[in-house]
Amino acid sequence: MKVELRSITPNAERLIAEAARVSRRGDGKPTGLDRDRATIRRLIRDGHDSVLEHASATFLVEGISRCCMAQLTRHRHASFTVESQRYVNVGDAGAVAPESIAADSKTGDAYWEAVLGAKRAYGELVDEGVPEEDARYVLPGGTVTRLIVTANFREWRHIIRQRAHPAAQWEIRELVTAIQAILAEHAPSVFGLHEEAK
Amino acid sequence: MKVELRSITPNAERLIAEAARVSRRGDGKPTGLDRDRATIRRLIRDGHDSVLEHASATFLVEGISRCCMAQLTRHRHASFTVESQRYVNVGDAGAVAPESIAADSKTGDAYWEAVLGAKRAYGELVDEGVPEEDARYVLPGGTVTRLIVTANFREWRHIIRQRAHPAAQWEIRELVTAIQAILAEHAPSVFGLHEEAK
Amino acid sequence: MKVELRSITPNAERLIAEAARVSRRGDGKPTGLDRDRATIRRLIRDGHDSVLEHASATFLVEGISRCCMAQLTRHRHASFTVESQRYVNVGDAGAVAPESIAADSKTGDAYWEAVLGAKRAYGELVDEGVPEEDARYVLPGGTVTRLIVTANFREWRHIIRQRAHPAAQWEIRELVTAIQAILAEHAPSVFGLHEEAK
Amino acid sequence: MKVELRSITPNAERLIAEAARVSRRGDGKPTGLDRDRATIRRLIRDGHDSVLEHASATFLVEGISRCCMAQLTRHRHASFTVESQRYVNVGDAGAVAPESIAADSKTGDAYWEAVLGAKRAYGELVDEGVPEEDARYVLPGGTVTRLIVTANFREWRHIIRQRAHPAAQWEIRELVTAIQAILAEHAPSVFGLHEEAK
Repeated sequence: MKVELRSITPNAERLIAEAARVSRRGDGKPTGLDRDRATIRRLIRDGHDSVLEHASATFLVEGISRCCMAQLTRHRHASFTVESQRYVNVGDAGAVAPESIAADSKTGDAYWEAVLGAKRAYGELVDEGVPEEDARYVLPGGTVTRLIVTANFREWRHIIRQRAHPAAQWEIRELVTAIQAILAEHAPSVFGLHEEAK
Repeated sequence: MKVELRSITPNAERLIAEAARVSRRGDGKPTGLDRDRATIRRLIRDGHDSVLEHASATFLVEGISRCCMAQLTRHRHASFTVESQRYVNVGDAGAVAPESIAADSKTGDAYWEAVLGAKRAYGELVDEGVPEEDARYVLPGGTVTRLIVTANFREWRHIIRQRAHPAAQWEIRELVTAIQAILAEHAPSVFGLHEEAK
Repeated sequence: MKVELRSITPNAERLIAEAARVSRRGDGKPTGLDRDRATIRRLIRDGHDSVLEHASATFLVEGISRCCMAQLTRHRHASFTVESQRYVNVGDAGAVAPESIAADSKTGDAYWEAVLGAKRAYGELVDEGVPEEDARYVLPGGTVTRLIVTANFREWRHIIRQRAHPAAQWEIRELVTAIQAILAEHAPSVFGLHEEAK
Repeated sequence: MKVELRSITPNAERLIAEAARVSRRGDGKPTGLDRDRATIRRLIRDGHDSVLEHASATFLVEGISRCCMAQLTRHRHASFTVESQRYVNVGDAGAVAPESIAADSKTGDAYWEAVLGAKRAYGELVDEGVPEEDARYVLPGGTVTRLIVTANFREWRHIIRQRAHPAAQWEIRELVTAIQAILAEHAPSVFGLHEEAK
């Protein structure tokens, strides 16, 4: 899995704090970063998190399974551009093997045998002239894909809260944990771990 | 594939026409169904389709592939409840075979061999104690699933326009064509074919 | 203020419980209303409230102020059709007087004098040929309006939680309290007061 | 009216073109700005505008009327932080006078007399202890306000198409025309006038 920040609102915390000041008609004078962060922490604590919508971040995600992608794309407030299996020959795409399968040679062998069988079949189907959009019906859910995802900070917080949760599946948990770590560097008042702990 | 209407706004066209009258401060007196339908056709023609959001319809869909489901759930204005592959043992679930594959015995055999191999592996993995949420990584995209989907009339029109289009894949086209046929019976002024033709 | 239920999903609790069963691949056999309600209460308690999106309700609201409407229409998951001040002559529309103003004759007089002055000016402007969409700039925020609003049950719960809260303004609190009372009759497992207490 | 760009996705056109390449599994090699712009123009022409969601822009808007704000905030895909009339004493806020009113001394006088009467009443109400959130019921729709608004490029295009249209009211048309001019400087392939002409 590869998670790469492709874009983030510059000076996001300053922008969010400015929006908060507009709401209460502050004098608009710029304040320091420390004060901006204190403002943001207070807004989040009080549930006034709509101001977080003014900042956003975009990630390139590679090497996640279609299963994981299906979970991520259910978040309807985010924007996605996904590698198309309809038009792209994905015969050489790898597959993710869950640790619960790969840890044991018996289950690992059963998994890879089936996955390789599916990929072989995919190649045959395409060679016989079946369109990629139909041939992909044979590909396993573990097949890797890649996508670009954008969400505003309020939505990223929501996704992280729900998917970094112990009840979430390991792969999406790994994904959003990596995303949170990156976001926390850029906007600690919004994504810092002790903030999320609440 | 099975498409079953589970719920629809009662007297939807009357409700939509009433909303339109509120906007322009009509006297609110009920008018006949014919006049309501003429009103709706005019609203749609003029692009005032936000009033269509007041009516909605819910369908139970069974026997579509996970590939098809992935396309449908990308429509972010609709609401979905999907059969969980994380908690449900789907070892006995069938698979959809695209016509482009099934029509030829060579491709058909290659497809079913791989699909059955994947299902066998799924059974072995679960027997060995792999959680369902991980075992499903081996299942092919053609595996059938079922879901409940709700959308308002404006969004159904949008989905139909996009997915009943010749450029859409055959399976989702078949699905939304079935949905449109049902909706056209209940609200012809909104979903009638000559309306969509525009 | 007049709040009138114009449409609601028939047998909403049954539909929601059915959706929940699809998610876990229950046998789909209909169960009784009591069991459906127990299912829904459990779903809400566990935070699985997305199934509530399959049911919705539409209200006609009359006699609320433009100030109140501005708050309500900020809920972006709901659908609104609002009486247009751009095309409708609203010179005869009444105004809402907050209790904090009306309770005292001094403030009450000051309020009504200004409101009547504004309405007189509105009439003059329209008489002089000023378009309604511009003449309305003189009308006070207390001017009454009417609208049709539709939201799904998940969103109604969210709106009620936020706007029936003591920190909300009195007028919108009055409005959503009336809405909740009606919804609680139709779907007590979703909108019953002790459910909301959580 | 003052419209000020507060934030915009850096190198927005490059980011959008990159997302488009992910969809079709291009080699990901950066291409020049000219090619990126050609890609974007083609995507828009073909209706593949969802990639535009990855870029966004935030504006500070001051000196628009509450009437104009009410129109703008109906766009449910955008994010708003609005100056609160509930908590802020807006007794010194100015008012917008539509040209159709101000152009003639008779209508202009009628307008300003009523507006000033309303402001006087507002001051009296607040002095008598009426909370700001109630006193504002007397304020005219022309009262100026300010807000911060963020939307992604797809939504900005939609807002511009709808509100820069001759059928839109003059004030919001003026607002979005100013916004488009700024966006066109930063992302001509998305917001350039001849693009919009389509």
